[in-house]
Amino acid sequence: MAQDMTLLWGSGSPPCWRIMIMLEEKELKGYNQKLLSFEKKEHKSKEVLDINPRGQFPAFKYKDYILNESYAACLFLEIQYKSQGTKLTPDCPMELALMYQRMFEGFSLLQKTGQVLYYDYNVPENERHESARTRNKEALTTEVKLWEGYLASSSGFLTGKTFSLSDVTVFPNIAYLFRSGLCEKRYPNLAKYYNGLKDRPSIKANWPPHWKESCECQVLLKDI
Amino acid sequence: MAQDMTLLWGSGSPPCWRIMIMLEEKELKGYNQKLLSFEKKEHKSKEVLDINPRGQFPAFKYKDYILNESYAACLFLEIQYKSQGTKLTPDCPMELALMYQRMFEGFSLLQKTGQVLYYDYNVPENERHESARTRNKEALTTEVKLWEGYLASSSGFLTGKTFSLSDVTVFPNIAYLFRSGLCEKRYPNLAKYYNGLKDRPSIKANWPPHWKESCECQVLLKDI
Repeated sequence: MAQDMTLLWGSGSPPCWRIMIMLEEKELKGYNQKLLSFEKKEHKSKEVLDINPRGQFPAFKYKDYILNESYAACLFLEIQYKSQGTKLTPDCPMELALMYQRMFEGFSLLQKTGQVLYYDYNVPENERHESARTRNKEALTTEVKLWEGYLASSSGFLTGKTFSLSDVTVFPNIAYLFRSGLCEKRYPNLAKYYNGLKDRPSIKANWPPHWKESCECQVLLKDI
Repeated sequence: MAQDMTLLWGSGSPPCWRIMIMLEEKELKGYNQKLLSFEKKEHKSKEVLDINPRGQFPAFKYKDYILNESYAACLFLEIQYKSQGTKLTPDCPMELALMYQRMFEGFSLLQKTGQVLYYDYNVPENERHESARTRNKEALTTEVKLWEGYLASSSGFLTGKTFSLSDVTVFPNIAYLFRSGLCEKRYPNLAKYYNGLKDRPSIKANWPPHWKESCECQVLLKDI
């Protein structure tokens, strides 16, 4: 039982989902967790700020160690629980190099997705420009096409022949694209990857609860 | 001799500098390297694009493995050369957790620095707003204060009592702040950290060549 861990999370946040997938893969059950609300601005509440001074989800503690950065939490848990649950780091140097490379390219994908989806949230009304929206969409399209190419020869995983840290960290980003309306027909390799992993127990058990309902946001990326 | 590695880099790029520090700490000398020019847009040249499809520095290859993402390169080299050169990963779980946490918080610091320094580069003239400049500066100030606090009890390193991957990855970000005019008197802990490490051989040997000359950019962060 992982009662010495605490996760404060928001539904639909890829960083939160990463940690939850990681905990599940490492068979770390029974941790303290609390679903909080973005809409109610609970990421700026005292209980979150006490752990995460930037006021962001997730706020994650392992014993007394603060690991709010989801990549930090995943890399740490993989070392701490090396021989427990799924082995998520390949031994083969070629696969290892590719795993790390794709993990960190994931930042680029999530950043460009955020620039499109959160434009109105991040940019005050009097500073918005259609030209910026167009540029952001073009940058995201170029990025998504890159990943579509990466997955052309996939064996069901992002890198190598088994589920690894690259899937733990990047799958939530890709799921977020499809939740936001990315066209499965236009990106068949991404769609195949997504559909092949969405029922994996660690992923399915932690599917963002509010994604079970439909939402206007589901068309935002239809042109990408 | 590390003749099976190739690095195409730009002067002053924190991601490039990270890889160079890492190679030096791991005693990997004699790698193929080529200094290219941002001004001449050589990051969009064929030789860079052949390795890095995003057209960014660094473009880095280890044998046939592409490791353009600097964090990926550092984590990979640390595993591949575990017992060669400096040991950069602590054994103590508490130090390990903090090392990873600060490494990934480094993304936040670099991103907020970039939003201030590259505003004119990234935003076309007709989309610029003074209110956005002010907001970006405020966000960076908040971020820099956080790091100033983190370093209050430093023993000369970002985490723990020895030079680690957190220093390899975050020192270039902090050096970049001071290069851009951050006030040493206003941030004494950051300045102490910076001055304590700037003559470390791996760092000094790879100091961005163009930083040896003065530049208008050296006042850009004076108000932060």
